[in-house]
Amino acid sequence: MSRLSRREIIGSGAASAAALAATQAVASPLDRDRILPVHLDKSRFAAAVAALRSIVGAEWVFADPDSTLPYRKCFTPDPRGEHIPSGAVAPASVEEVQAILKLANEYKLPLWTVSTGKNMGYGCATPASTGQMILDLKRMNNIIEVDPILGTALVEPGVTYQDLHDYLEANNLPFWLDVPTVGPIVSPLGNTLDRGVGYTAYGDHFFVQCGMEVVLADGTLVRTGMGSVPKSTTWQAFKWGYGPYLDGIFTQSNFGVVTKLGFWLMPKPPAFKPFMVRHNQMEDVGKIVDAMRPLRMSNLIPNCVLMMGAAYQLAMFHRREEIWTEPTQAPDDVIRAFANKQGLGMWNTYFALYGTEDIIAAIEPIVRQAFVASGGEVLTEREMGDNKWFHHHKNLMSGQLTLEEKGIMRWRGGGMIAFAPVAPAKGSETHGQTALAKQMLAKYNFDYSVAYAIGGRELHHIIFLLYDKGNPEEEKKADTCICELIRSFGERGWASYRTGVSTMDLVAQQYGESNRQLNARLKHALDPNHILSPGKSGIA
Amino acid sequence: MSRLSRREIIGSGAASAAALAATQAVASPLDRDRILPVHLDKSRFAAAVAALRSIVGAEWVFADPDSTLPYRKCFTPDPRGEHIPSGAVAPASVEEVQAILKLANEYKLPLWTVSTGKNMGYGCATPASTGQMILDLKRMNNIIEVDPILGTALVEPGVTYQDLHDYLEANNLPFWLDVPTVGPIVSPLGNTLDRGVGYTAYGDHFFVQCGMEVVLADGTLVRTGMGSVPKSTTWQAFKWGYGPYLDGIFTQSNFGVVTKLGFWLMPKPPAFKPFMVRHNQMEDVGKIVDAMRPLRMSNLIPNCVLMMGAAYQLAMFHRREEIWTEPTQAPDDVIRAFANKQGLGMWNTYFALYGTEDIIAAIEPIVRQAFVASGGEVLTEREMGDNKWFHHHKNLMSGQLTLEEKGIMRWRGGGMIAFAPVAPAKGSETHGQTALAKQMLAKYNFDYSVAYAIGGRELHHIIFLLYDKGNPEEEKKADTCICELIRSFGERGWASYRTGVSTMDLVAQQYGESNRQLNARLKHALDPNHILSPGKSGIA
Repeated sequence: MSRLSRREIIGSGAASAAALAATQAVASPLDRDRILPVHLDKSRFAAAVAALRSIVGAEWVFADPDSTLPYRKCFTPDPRGEHIPSGAVAPASVEEVQAILKLANEYKLPLWTVSTGKNMGYGCATPASTGQMILDLKRMNNIIEVDPILGTALVEPGVTYQDLHDYLEANNLPFWLDVPTVGPIVSPLGNTLDRGVGYTAYGDHFFVQCGMEVVLADGTLVRTGMGSVPKSTTWQAFKWGYGPYLDGIFTQSNFGVVTKLGFWLMPKPPAFKPFMVRHNQMEDVGKIVDAMRPLRMSNLIPNCVLMMGAAYQLAMFHRREEIWTEPTQAPDDVIRAFANKQGLGMWNTYFALYGTEDIIAAIEPIVRQAFVASGGEVLTEREMGDNKWFHHHKNLMSGQLTLEEKGIMRWRGGGMIAFAPVAPAKGSETHGQTALAKQMLAKYNFDYSVAYAIGGRELHHIIFLLYDKGNPEEEKKADTCICELIRSFGERGWASYRTGVSTMDLVAQQYGESNRQLNARLKHALDPNHILSPGKSGIA
Repeated sequence: MSRLSRREIIGSGAASAAALAATQAVASPLDRDRILPVHLDKSRFAAAVAALRSIVGAEWVFADPDSTLPYRKCFTPDPRGEHIPSGAVAPASVEEVQAILKLANEYKLPLWTVSTGKNMGYGCATPASTGQMILDLKRMNNIIEVDPILGTALVEPGVTYQDLHDYLEANNLPFWLDVPTVGPIVSPLGNTLDRGVGYTAYGDHFFVQCGMEVVLADGTLVRTGMGSVPKSTTWQAFKWGYGPYLDGIFTQSNFGVVTKLGFWLMPKPPAFKPFMVRHNQMEDVGKIVDAMRPLRMSNLIPNCVLMMGAAYQLAMFHRREEIWTEPTQAPDDVIRAFANKQGLGMWNTYFALYGTEDIIAAIEPIVRQAFVASGGEVLTEREMGDNKWFHHHKNLMSGQLTLEEKGIMRWRGGGMIAFAPVAPAKGSETHGQTALAKQMLAKYNFDYSVAYAIGGRELHHIIFLLYDKGNPEEEKKADTCICELIRSFGERGWASYRTGVSTMDLVAQQYGESNRQLNARLKHALDPNHILSPGKSGIA
């Protein structure tokens, strides 16, 4: 909110939640005051909508409360109505995107770009500020190419992991997808642009991304890397191209609209063996990280490892009241006792070995030794075969799709927001993080529902704040708590790798003024009218 | 050369090689016409030099023919004197860099930034256009931090691979460096910014880079990734940070002066086994690539693999006249016969397995089978122990330093220029490339001295044009030939991943107008006076 105050962005004088609710209750489109883009009055917005309809067809512009409702739906707290779209437009082609951007520049119409809009714990399709029109790319859903020799894919924004999975199956191609949580409904393009992570050796999605097509705000079409060389066959094979490597500036940003994304697919290995290591004390977290780090650094364990906290895991398949009926934070011993009955410990670390039977046999003893020394129980399919959590992670680590983790939203009434600070993969860093997160969540009576994802050298501490979305008081508390978490962690140097629409500006502040100014200069150079996703990552 | 013609950049009317040579013969500084920056006359240049001296001390500004001679030295052809620096300035600190940039903006003084200036086949320290002052960062040579737990390094531009290697040895740290050719004298920062490649599992240097400090043209100091978060301990542990990922735009570019670079170090494995696969026909090249691709994609062979052509290898330790005394391209059978006597085939492919003895034993049979099926002989230390080429690659694949490859410059009289087109790692792509390169080199009587580097999914075809630098006619031919190679490959979609100072603009043209305009917009946003390395990667 550096350029405009929150009040200005809400626009139309609809500054209070009550006023917004009243506005939304009016059903007929555009004939009353409702959520308008900041620079547009009612008639100007109506003209913009009409012009959009002439580009994409009337049925693909949504500008009344009913039809925009799906775009408002989110799990994250928005107690002050600061993330309400003014409408949505869904183009079917690059040419339509270009025409829309031309029009948006003329009208100063802010467009919040989404692929499939399933950015679950980070705000789904809702914009960083009220009054943006959603640029919904779901209709651009072609799998343009899968190279069966190189194991590469080129897809449009509306393609889901499920679409791609089905394509690989239908064509009997020997590759595994690396999926994020709730992969079936998520767009690989969208997730990669948000620098999401998964569960296999290809778990760092931006790492395995290769080549983009981007429409700039002025309609210029750019292909990155080798994609801009006529007749090149190397667009999805070589990541860097020539000259400045540009793909990065189109991730977690609002510098362009990415209309095609290339990435690599993991060759299906001849053999695969999933593991779970069970530790039963909250304090064990540091030991697990220290045991895991050398194995990840040496690539003996090649996949993106998840250390799942029991409270998070239980939320997948259970409701809170089955376990703890007090309003206060569920105590460790209560969580542990219930988890133990399910075959789970306080921390359950999932990783896998990939290769041939011989290779796995050569690596397994080294891994076992390290985790036994850390005080963990090393468990495999033999011991855990029927366990639904083990099965879930086995699926994820072998490129299978599942929606099971959506279950966590039922824990406490449909509300969820994620906070994901990063730290070096050192056990010493986890103790302070776990203690701080638990304490701050307890202050507001929320549970410590978390996982640590261990990359090669860093930890993502993924903290899911689960709350009752139907309870306005609790929504407010969740909003306050998440901001306090971000601030408290930030003061200690632990900043987020990604954040929800309501906290993008707050996190951007933690990355300092030089970084912010540099982003602002790039934004101004590429989108001088600030029509593309204003507020994304705190960039106006 | 989009903004200024070559003639304008040469400046001072010294447009012919003869005139330049005459100018250079005048020894006394600044009292005669010599190579001046394009916007500065003699007195203005003298004032700039005086001001630079007040910043860094008189002894660290070089502005006369004698003292600038080391900066003019290069192996690449420059028959028209288009890459002659006007002088050099060597700051000792970030503050001095900032002061220099402030002054450069005032004077419109173009600064060509180098780390140690050993960009061997690509122009050493020479600028993309005559009349630039070299910003030589060699004095900033601190190893700022090596994290012994995470295996990360943070270094300044003047640090060489040798410096870092010595540091690891002195501190008994269990990490291997990934070095480029002639690693001892090269800067990890400089090589990574040029997106150089090496020989181990960490061979893609930009892939394992993590965090930068950059001085922008206006003196703003920016730290990328987690480096901009106060109190963060994660700068070298997590690559992407938050918001747009910016590091990429400072590679192969002129958007800032990188003053610190972080990167990851490869943990020394318990066991290491180097291999060479020998093939004896030029046409085998495709079979090798097809055998190698699945092994690289599955990461069974984790390192950056080199398929070395015999003519290139022989040039390391032999002079041309020992093998072929005709002026025409050395024929395949002559090269093969000599190579065979040295224990080499026409193609010699070097890779290594890393891990434990057990892991290597589990992988080796798979690898052997694939290469035997490709018609190759799989050789190890047992068969090749004393072979100097085998020993050389064994060193490189295990993080050791060597200057032996400098030997290739003696092949034909000190001249060398590299051309490095990229293609997908498919055998079918190599036949056309090898045939085309051989034919074009033959047209100018140059030998086919090449290697193919095989990444995960792509090939770098690294073609070294070796010529007699002391022979003006041959220098001209080399210049013509390299441009013709670039054009002919480009027309077929094979563009370079990196190129020398004399062909940066030519290659940039092959990446198309949209890409070029986007780079120009970013350049204008970040360096409106175009003081930083004008012409780098074809960006004015």
